[in-house]
Amino acid sequence: MTQKPRARDIGLKFSGMPGPYNAITDVPGVTVGYSTILENPVEGVHKGLCTGVTAIIPRGMSGSIQPVWAGIDSFNGNGEFTGSHLINDLGWFLGPVMITNSHGVGMTSHATVGWMIDRFKEIFNEDHMWCLPVVGETYDGVLNDINARAVQEHHVLEALDTATGGPVAEGNVGGGTGMIAYEFKGGTGTASRKITVAGAGYTLGVMVQANHGTRNWFEVSGVAVGHRMREDMVFGHEQGSIIVVIATDAPLMPHQLNRLARRGSIGIGRNGSKGGHNSGDIFLAFSTANGHDNPWRAPDVMNLEILNDVHLDLFYEAAVQSVEEAVLNAMIAAEDRVAVKPAGKLVRAIDPARLVEIVNGA
Amino acid sequence: MTQKPRARDIGLKFSGMPGPYNAITDVPGVTVGYSTILENPVEGVHKGLCTGVTAIIPRGMSGSIQPVWAGIDSFNGNGEFTGSHLINDLGWFLGPVMITNSHGVGMTSHATVGWMIDRFKEIFNEDHMWCLPVVGETYDGVLNDINARAVQEHHVLEALDTATGGPVAEGNVGGGTGMIAYEFKGGTGTASRKITVAGAGYTLGVMVQANHGTRNWFEVSGVAVGHRMREDMVFGHEQGSIIVVIATDAPLMPHQLNRLARRGSIGIGRNGSKGGHNSGDIFLAFSTANGHDNPWRAPDVMNLEILNDVHLDLFYEAAVQSVEEAVLNAMIAAEDRVAVKPAGKLVRAIDPARLVEIVNGA
Amino acid sequence: MTQKPRARDIGLKFSGMPGPYNAITDVPGVTVGYSTILENPVEGVHKGLCTGVTAIIPRGMSGSIQPVWAGIDSFNGNGEFTGSHLINDLGWFLGPVMITNSHGVGMTSHATVGWMIDRFKEIFNEDHMWCLPVVGETYDGVLNDINARAVQEHHVLEALDTATGGPVAEGNVGGGTGMIAYEFKGGTGTASRKITVAGAGYTLGVMVQANHGTRNWFEVSGVAVGHRMREDMVFGHEQGSIIVVIATDAPLMPHQLNRLARRGSIGIGRNGSKGGHNSGDIFLAFSTANGHDNPWRAPDVMNLEILNDVHLDLFYEAAVQSVEEAVLNAMIAAEDRVAVKPAGKLVRAIDPARLVEIVNGA
Amino acid sequence: MTQKPRARDIGLKFSGMPGPYNAITDVPGVTVGYSTILENPVEGVHKGLCTGVTAIIPRGMSGSIQPVWAGIDSFNGNGEFTGSHLINDLGWFLGPVMITNSHGVGMTSHATVGWMIDRFKEIFNEDHMWCLPVVGETYDGVLNDINARAVQEHHVLEALDTATGGPVAEGNVGGGTGMIAYEFKGGTGTASRKITVAGAGYTLGVMVQANHGTRNWFEVSGVAVGHRMREDMVFGHEQGSIIVVIATDAPLMPHQLNRLARRGSIGIGRNGSKGGHNSGDIFLAFSTANGHDNPWRAPDVMNLEILNDVHLDLFYEAAVQSVEEAVLNAMIAAEDRVAVKPAGKLVRAIDPARLVEIVNGA
Repeated sequence: MTQKPRARDIGLKFSGMPGPYNAITDVPGVTVGYSTILENPVEGVHKGLCTGVTAIIPRGMSGSIQPVWAGIDSFNGNGEFTGSHLINDLGWFLGPVMITNSHGVGMTSHATVGWMIDRFKEIFNEDHMWCLPVVGETYDGVLNDINARAVQEHHVLEALDTATGGPVAEGNVGGGTGMIAYEFKGGTGTASRKITVAGAGYTLGVMVQANHGTRNWFEVSGVAVGHRMREDMVFGHEQGSIIVVIATDAPLMPHQLNRLARRGSIGIGRNGSKGGHNSGDIFLAFSTANGHDNPWRAPDVMNLEILNDVHLDLFYEAAVQSVEEAVLNAMIAAEDRVAVKPAGKLVRAIDPARLVEIVNGA
Repeated sequence: MTQKPRARDIGLKFSGMPGPYNAITDVPGVTVGYSTILENPVEGVHKGLCTGVTAIIPRGMSGSIQPVWAGIDSFNGNGEFTGSHLINDLGWFLGPVMITNSHGVGMTSHATVGWMIDRFKEIFNEDHMWCLPVVGETYDGVLNDINARAVQEHHVLEALDTATGGPVAEGNVGGGTGMIAYEFKGGTGTASRKITVAGAGYTLGVMVQANHGTRNWFEVSGVAVGHRMREDMVFGHEQGSIIVVIATDAPLMPHQLNRLARRGSIGIGRNGSKGGHNSGDIFLAFSTANGHDNPWRAPDVMNLEILNDVHLDLFYEAAVQSVEEAVLNAMIAAEDRVAVKPAGKLVRAIDPARLVEIVNGA
Repeated sequence: MTQKPRARDIGLKFSGMPGPYNAITDVPGVTVGYSTILENPVEGVHKGLCTGVTAIIPRGMSGSIQPVWAGIDSFNGNGEFTGSHLINDLGWFLGPVMITNSHGVGMTSHATVGWMIDRFKEIFNEDHMWCLPVVGETYDGVLNDINARAVQEHHVLEALDTATGGPVAEGNVGGGTGMIAYEFKGGTGTASRKITVAGAGYTLGVMVQANHGTRNWFEVSGVAVGHRMREDMVFGHEQGSIIVVIATDAPLMPHQLNRLARRGSIGIGRNGSKGGHNSGDIFLAFSTANGHDNPWRAPDVMNLEILNDVHLDLFYEAAVQSVEEAVLNAMIAAEDRVAVKPAGKLVRAIDPARLVEIVNGA
Repeated sequence: MTQKPRARDIGLKFSGMPGPYNAITDVPGVTVGYSTILENPVEGVHKGLCTGVTAIIPRGMSGSIQPVWAGIDSFNGNGEFTGSHLINDLGWFLGPVMITNSHGVGMTSHATVGWMIDRFKEIFNEDHMWCLPVVGETYDGVLNDINARAVQEHHVLEALDTATGGPVAEGNVGGGTGMIAYEFKGGTGTASRKITVAGAGYTLGVMVQANHGTRNWFEVSGVAVGHRMREDMVFGHEQGSIIVVIATDAPLMPHQLNRLARRGSIGIGRNGSKGGHNSGDIFLAFSTANGHDNPWRAPDVMNLEILNDVHLDLFYEAAVQSVEEAVLNAMIAAEDRVAVKPAGKLVRAIDPARLVEIVNGA
């Protein structure tokens, strides 16, 4: 994969030390796959497609299904992230985290169930095993004919089957294909941080599907750039959402992961969002530590490690920093798209040179 | 519709005064529709289908999309009820409430989006309108080859398009087709109560998809009948779930409806359930009062009525009574089915005569 | 302590196997202490006092302050249980659980802070340690001149300093002194159950401060005794509350203890309560397992044991059974009291002989 | 009251239009009172007192007790804000909002009950009325001998009895007296914004008790000033908390006020906080609109107005802006204090001239 210049490549500054890929895949075992759907209008069928599906697979899924411990926070619930009842109660989930457009949630869920059944045939055949997928969404009805419900089963399987570690594509890819952030072209972004606690090294990685914010609110590195970049504005008020997925290999329990997820709000606030009413701002955090078999096959009493709460600030800081950078990575990797509603409206990617110029006080 | 004998027809006693149909459809405007899927095994395709879809449409949906005020409670979150982030935050939802099997949630959501787009074309074309359906589920993998993912788009549309008021079918219908309750055949059930507050009459109606409980726990009218009915037991521990939908025409706001939903736990407890770990026990409450247009088209400031909290006990009581009766209505209307896993196992409907005999102390 | 006859002594039947004291003190290390305040009216000072304070100390508090893992559920939040923000977020609390009357919460909290500072001087002197006590309450304004704010610092210290293991007094003692349940005299009650999981033995104990329910709702062993016992009714609608504290020595994590706490609703429902609006029905669960030092002094990474979720049903069942029995123990141990508002109204303790007669079908 | 220079007086820039006092008292009817406790060490009694109590009275309390509609958010629950069960469930509270130090919560609650009983004698005498006060706290054990539990009943009454509208004192006053923010002297701060919606004017006001943040995190107007102001640092990691109270006269219902309260996290994030683990970051929002009598005396069905959700972004923005400014107002009005633990350590107020210099890029 040839990677485009990213936020720090163009000269933006961030705190903290990223992992080797500065991506959610820096958390050992986490893989990411996409299906990107781009089609010109087809008379009588759709007005133009610009959407997709993102799959984040928390850890090596060969062999048995291992849950990951998890927490979730619905900062602004005007959106959907299925699987939340499970995560809230059980503190874990099975299988991948999927992100797509608002009207693709159902098909993505349907197809993910199929993929899980197929992949873990033996368990689904023998046990009374069920699958209630974790699927988040943001609205792409400006750039995509969302009412065409374009996401099909094969798209979802493509995202799942192509998931890999290493560098991660950003911008107009996967579920983030048709996104708009701060009235610039938005999309998929990622970042990570290394954390050292009492001599032990951990990684925290973030992936966002950034579809939120108004131009008036937009800030970068503390500079109100939105007030200086007034061209090609898109709409009067917030219309989108942001999904944040935070992964770590540190041994955090569900009640700690809930708190970690909650830091998403401070993270998105760093670029000026106030969490607009129309925005489904929902944040998921999971830990790949303390792996164990699924409950039906796990031991009666499990031994776990749990990090002392007094060290959580390092993770909160890493999450906030990573969310801030992932949002900008999404925007900087994104490419111009022409809207379907209102038809013909150009949604521009941000001009990195101009952005840096303004941030640097020119 | 020829209605089967119901719990009170066979001689069981309940408190409170039901509405004319003793059904959720007693709440003015509420309609119910089903798609029931029953198929013998097809070699290489599936091992036998016994499942379906239930649609509850909160009020007259012609013209514009009117949200209903709503609250939700996840008593045991080992299940799914999509749309909950919205309901928790906004206090309302748009469109129908759907209930199906665990692996049918995705397709039901997908199809419901299509139905909404089709039905409210003008709004979806003109506004940036999205649809995140409310879909609950329970697991029917004992009686249904759940891994065949049998629910298709046309099933969902059938449930939605056939929704009507009046008497409501119970037992092996719709999403409740393949359910098991207290190790007897379970399914779909309903009941209602009339409430008078300060001279004004209101109705509260309940629909359940009953798939919960072990025989050991089973009680009817305070009698531990499960200890007396030991034949045809199905499994060692709780494996299912129960979805409870509570509708009312009383003017209750979201924070009150959350509390009303929460009474579902006391309701299901009346037949002996302890809310088993494997059970997704999730309760939704909505009010058809205070109707207004969808937010994009509603006035800047809306006038609402809200019932004084001091009268809520009457609604709590009605909800508990209706849940208790609806569960028994589901079981008494249900019919025997043979399991697919373990194959050949007979899951019997409860014998009403024997039940009444035991309750009456014979 | 001479123990009065308890619910099972008078012939009522319950499921499950209690511990040796059938009390919360069967959970190793848990101690209970009371301060009971009973005074005749004093002209110009108060109209009569009938109140008190209960202290539950989760485990041996000598040496260092060890938190206990905890979860909480606010089934009906029309009440107070301080410390809940901490418990929700951190999953643990430090120090005792206190229960008193509604207007005694502040003084009980104040005095408990003093007791903690005094008892753990070294830690409070050296560390930046704070204490935010866990204090629940129910309203006793019918039997007690609650507006006299009778609870003083020495009462709280008395409850804390007299806490012991072994048999536990019930009825008109401690915080439960002025309580009314189902329009009979209520109060403090306790019960416990033994649980065996995969060869390991655990104990679950419950303490309630029972001040809830209307006569119309009252049921015992599934019999609607409230419809048969119509004498000496007190008020038209629910006015009180119930606090439930669940203790166990099983290794449960906070997200599991939240779920365990939530079973309180099914427990109180077994005697007919619907969770009336005026009732603060708040449930706390804690586990004495996985003891570790307070966070400032605990290791960076702690090793814990956690019980597999698949075994939780045994604990849910034990909690429901213990709550049901503890409420009846409270009522049966209680003694008649004359009200202060309305003055002179007699609030009778339930007549055990008559109760058993009705339950037995006489 | 002679008001000190405030954040915008020294040249800091903020967005939005403040009300006449740029204070929470700009919301009609809201009054604020303080008790400030400052004492030199007294051998054998205490090591020095630097603490107090703040009272915010939501609206004219003469005559009957009118609840205010309310919502609450516990962003980081390592703290206390009593009354939260009530607010979460009922969506309103009665009486004042109090803020004090961590070990003063109990006495403040106790005294507030007394004040309410005294002030609304008739209602407390006639009805079965209870009072469960709303009391928040932050930890001042660095500057105050918190273990001396210095807050007494008369202090609380002083804060309540002196509450007035108009300009509001800031810095080392009331509950904020002994606070530390970003390792500078912190305290009490306030700010407000005017909002126009569809031709109607509303006000939103904020009060904070700022005791949070580390120097490393500190940012002002997007500039990382904490990295430039390295003198007089206090501790290695976050140790405090922040309480945010948001008042408005806009007709918002509880489910909307919950969302408004939640914006506190973005507000505090604007000065660099990540919501540290040791910080109890709890946010309360209330609306003085839709006033009605207390439930015992209110009509059976109440008529309310509710603002359309589509306008909430203006309130979210106003809340974030006001929180940001109130925190800086608190810090700029604050004055140096010498610590009691570690004894003798000087905690300096921020130097406004130096701050502005750095923000302006000098």
